[in-house]
Amino acid sequence: MNILLFEEHEVSAEGILTVCGDRARHMIDVQRMEVGQRVRIGALGGKQGSGRIAALSPDRVEIRIEALDAEVPAATTDLIVALPRPQILKKILSMAAALGVRRIMLVRSARVIKSYFDSPALAPDKINQQLMLGLEQAIATHLPEVTIHERFRPFIEDALPGIAKETDVSLLAHPAATCDICELGLVERLGARSTVALAIGPEGGWEQHEVEAFERVGFMACSSGRHVLRVDTAVGVLLGQVEMLRRLPSASE
Amino acid sequence: MNILLFEEHEVSAEGILTVCGDRARHMIDVQRMEVGQRVRIGALGGKQGSGRIAALSPDRVEIRIEALDAEVPAATTDLIVALPRPQILKKILSMAAALGVRRIMLVRSARVIKSYFDSPALAPDKINQQLMLGLEQAIATHLPEVTIHERFRPFIEDALPGIAKETDVSLLAHPAATCDICELGLVERLGARSTVALAIGPEGGWEQHEVEAFERVGFMACSSGRHVLRVDTAVGVLLGQVEMLRRLPSASE
Repeated sequence: MNILLFEEHEVSAEGILTVCGDRARHMIDVQRMEVGQRVRIGALGGKQGSGRIAALSPDRVEIRIEALDAEVPAATTDLIVALPRPQILKKILSMAAALGVRRIMLVRSARVIKSYFDSPALAPDKINQQLMLGLEQAIATHLPEVTIHERFRPFIEDALPGIAKETDVSLLAHPAATCDICELGLVERLGARSTVALAIGPEGGWEQHEVEAFERVGFMACSSGRHVLRVDTAVGVLLGQVEMLRRLPSASE
Repeated sequence: MNILLFEEHEVSAEGILTVCGDRARHMIDVQRMEVGQRVRIGALGGKQGSGRIAALSPDRVEIRIEALDAEVPAATTDLIVALPRPQILKKILSMAAALGVRRIMLVRSARVIKSYFDSPALAPDKINQQLMLGLEQAIATHLPEVTIHERFRPFIEDALPGIAKETDVSLLAHPAATCDICELGLVERLGARSTVALAIGPEGGWEQHEVEAFERVGFMACSSGRHVLRVDTAVGVLLGQVEMLRRLPSASE
């Protein structure tokens, strides 16, 4: 845990943040924190800062907030993922939160096994747990919004056109694509705050009609390089590459 | 398994590849292959092609090689990783093999827990198993060479200068670095076949004297973005970014 995340209602009018239960026990038993120690803190969805431990009891920690003024850049990537098996889903959720994703859409596709939608890993508290792990690791505060789309067609017809329209660049990862993410001229098109939607298929990839459905609303199919990657590896590689495309100086700068 | 990898001695003078044991059983029981079916094949360290199943018995598959002429670009990235805990090590090995790494050097650093070097995951056959999983996933044939360096100082003094010297660009991933991998002008410096050495630290990062030791032989410290990542996430993100830097067209092209 590299940052202690909290919600507004946990802070008193006097600027005391009170943490109870598991989080408090982790700070006391695992991190072995002591009164007077400084802690990095972050308001969920808001700013970061620091506080100092004012009081400890077995399952309660009180922290006097000292500063809470460091802006955290808003996340600007939307991730669409064909729902993977639960173990991979967990990794993807925490990784996406760590890498600054704004929205995660878990969708059905022809090669997704239907029973994955019944997994306990999709319970809101289980999803939240993985997202929080990612934020706490990455020292981030923006909790991604997660939605589950159990039918492909309504997602494609009702949700996708709006997503593509409000996004600067929409990409569909597809190992069989004829072009590579490096060949789309994206360094010139993306700036530091550009919004990107990224759709990553299931093991075995998207089916051709799925690729066409994405392309019809403006997604560009591309591969991430010459290797066929596991879904969780592809998420890390592609989110890292999108971040790089945003941050590389373009030739005109 | 997206490709069946084999060694030269498994092929007869008549061009029949004979696969036995676990690999054969996987093809028969899991992949449910049948006589006449086409299989993608790859010679370890060599070319890719295809074959057709000529005969099946309970733990033996014979494949007539039809073509073996697709060149696989040689891997050109060397990865130096502070030895992580065994579960993370496994992921890193298969991911590095999948993403086209030439050499993996597992090294000691101040924040590495010494007992990790006694882990059974470091046995040559266990390492090989993870590497093969990565190659089979990624449809690759180049098995990375893995070396273990249990003492930091001899590694830094004896091995590192040679690595830095024979490599086009040497990078040290360091979340606290003042510059970002996007700010080093690497698109101009790297071409498709450039060699890159990439050093990734332990949870908690490299210590300052370690950073300085790498810098003395020419490594450039940089961060991969604004997030503090888990080691396995960092490996995927950074290998993807290095590959992108090699493949993006430079302004002078």
